[in-house]
Amino acid sequence: MKVTPWEVSGEIDYERLIKEFGTSPLTPELKEEITKIAGDHVMLRRGYFYSHRDLDVALRHYKEGKGFFLYTGRGPSGPMHLGHLIPMIFTKWLQEKFRVNVYIEVTDDEKFLYKKDAEWGEIQKYTIDNILDIAAVGFDPEKTFIFRDSEYIANAYPLILKIAKKINFSTAKAVFGFTNETNIGMIFYPAYQVLPTMFEKKICLIPAAIDQDPYWRIQRDIAESLGYYKTAAIHSKFFPPLQGIEGKMSSSQKESAIWLSDDEKTVRSKIMKYAFSGGQPTIEEHRKKGGNPDVDVSFQWLKIFFEPDDGRLRKIEEEYRSGKMLTGELKEILVEKVCRFLEEHRERREKAREEIKEFMYEGKLASEMWGKRFE
Amino acid sequence: MKVTPWEVSGEIDYERLIKEFGTSPLTPELKEEITKIAGDHVMLRRGYFYSHRDLDVALRHYKEGKGFFLYTGRGPSGPMHLGHLIPMIFTKWLQEKFRVNVYIEVTDDEKFLYKKDAEWGEIQKYTIDNILDIAAVGFDPEKTFIFRDSEYIANAYPLILKIAKKINFSTAKAVFGFTNETNIGMIFYPAYQVLPTMFEKKICLIPAAIDQDPYWRIQRDIAESLGYYKTAAIHSKFFPPLQGIEGKMSSSQKESAIWLSDDEKTVRSKIMKYAFSGGQPTIEEHRKKGGNPDVDVSFQWLKIFFEPDDGRLRKIEEEYRSGKMLTGELKEILVEKVCRFLEEHRERREKAREEIKEFMYEGKLASEMWGKRFE
Repeated sequence: MKVTPWEVSGEIDYERLIKEFGTSPLTPELKEEITKIAGDHVMLRRGYFYSHRDLDVALRHYKEGKGFFLYTGRGPSGPMHLGHLIPMIFTKWLQEKFRVNVYIEVTDDEKFLYKKDAEWGEIQKYTIDNILDIAAVGFDPEKTFIFRDSEYIANAYPLILKIAKKINFSTAKAVFGFTNETNIGMIFYPAYQVLPTMFEKKICLIPAAIDQDPYWRIQRDIAESLGYYKTAAIHSKFFPPLQGIEGKMSSSQKESAIWLSDDEKTVRSKIMKYAFSGGQPTIEEHRKKGGNPDVDVSFQWLKIFFEPDDGRLRKIEEEYRSGKMLTGELKEILVEKVCRFLEEHRERREKAREEIKEFMYEGKLASEMWGKRFE
Repeated sequence: MKVTPWEVSGEIDYERLIKEFGTSPLTPELKEEITKIAGDHVMLRRGYFYSHRDLDVALRHYKEGKGFFLYTGRGPSGPMHLGHLIPMIFTKWLQEKFRVNVYIEVTDDEKFLYKKDAEWGEIQKYTIDNILDIAAVGFDPEKTFIFRDSEYIANAYPLILKIAKKINFSTAKAVFGFTNETNIGMIFYPAYQVLPTMFEKKICLIPAAIDQDPYWRIQRDIAESLGYYKTAAIHSKFFPPLQGIEGKMSSSQKESAIWLSDDEKTVRSKIMKYAFSGGQPTIEEHRKKGGNPDVDVSFQWLKIFFEPDDGRLRKIEEEYRSGKMLTGELKEILVEKVCRFLEEHRERREKAREEIKEFMYEGKLASEMWGKRFE
């Protein structure tokens, strides 16, 4: 198993990650606390978000009226796939329920620096494309600021420097695995990913996959010395690639992902062809022994997000496990759900074109942010 | 001897620096070439500028009509002293004679990152103060752009990233002596100091002390792959501190420097008290054995800058060497020269207050630069 902000591979032992990163499991009590305030969400209930740092503190601040704010991000290295959208959807839900500000960092600098052959112009093209997909998730245009690093640096370089001054190479090397070959831009970049946790003098809550946690670990070491709160975080597992539940859906393995732009025919063909099945080799055997939903990617996708109805999911699970439902039938259910989701997403995406300006420059929060200078 | 962009100490062997840094000596032929075009300058004639990279190429480009531009800088870690102003004066002369653009980088980021206890607000205060001193040197307000890093980052971050992507930690460590304890801001900073060499698609010529050469060495390794010229440079020796001709005048040793704000009384007292003398312990002995101008700081200051008249300097040298002129008399000559220079500088500084806007934002070159975005 390898888990860094730039690489996730092997069989993921999520419990081990909690121990290695030093985070805390998301307990039933804590989920219950969120549910009391915000209601229920499929990604909480089914354990897709499963670990945290100081979520209890963020909730306490909320209840005490001190509040909190949300921060998440996107590295615009290519078009977006389903795996990229999932934490955005959860973040949007939190915003809606807690009525808080959301900051979304689009890390064009990081992606340019990290990808050996990346051209700046190409990254910029994806930046605009990705922001449209993010806007389509339905964030509140008055309470959401989507920014790209290369633009907002104008307003925040001094605070980024203050953060950078607190992190030495030794720490960066230990936390991110930098080597002598790492370029000096990449070495500096973590300071920028820490920045948005200091956009307000409130506690920040970050919904993101657990591979991003090294940044928050560093943030928590230095935040108070700069006069800010240690950030809170709520960590998700990785959205599984079509080929199997190991690793994560990845842009660099084209056949592992369903892109937000994939049409119905493509979605069907990819799921039918690639989605790893927990079924048996022959119909006869399947009817007799049944399938294994625990390793079946189609079932896992339904569980994480696409079938929020617990009763229906239980029924699918039972029928698949018993052999009553065949792999093809299970996949058919997923195909339909994914296609409907993508169709609706693309409709919202078209409408979001007009909102981009609000999110990036003119909405209430965005225009406040462009009027600020972080020193 | 230790010579890095952040530390100069010990007895400086300038010839060894040429070998170690891989630069070229400024030959009589090359000086003659400059003189043919620009006339003479005391700092060239007397060998204060003594080494270069590709100065011959820059002059050839000039003669061929392709032109060149000048770039120098200042780290605003405190008030400016005489040593800081000397390369500015030479740069201004080059601008006047060649009628070229000058870019002056004020590295507030670097100084904040480098000085352990530096506060951002303090660095900003010195930035404004220093820019006033630089403006007083008399650069052409239409052809000069003075900028502070923390502001101009807004227009140049993408190109800085492209530069940073070409430099790995291994190179930065070898060239600048970075260690595991160096903060990640300092490690990134060299990319910004390289940036201004790419402000025009012409060859850049950098007049600066030789301790800055490591940056130009890196620039020359990567410039062409980014579509720019390898920079040229003309290197000066270090302006000697009052205590003796070793090392360089330094802000961190207060009694080594004459500040641009020192009044006549202070200047007199510092020179009389601290300026290392090549004279003998008693008047009798001095009359008999004579003084040694080669190690006498007052004489060296006259030679570098304050007595541009060769005839008069020769007379001073002869009289001092022979014992006819006493140390006190030599110092008196210097006191008068320095005080007159500082008085005139401060008059120009007052007038320059109105020009700051031109240099930084509104002059022809400055407003062009604020309209550009470097990607």
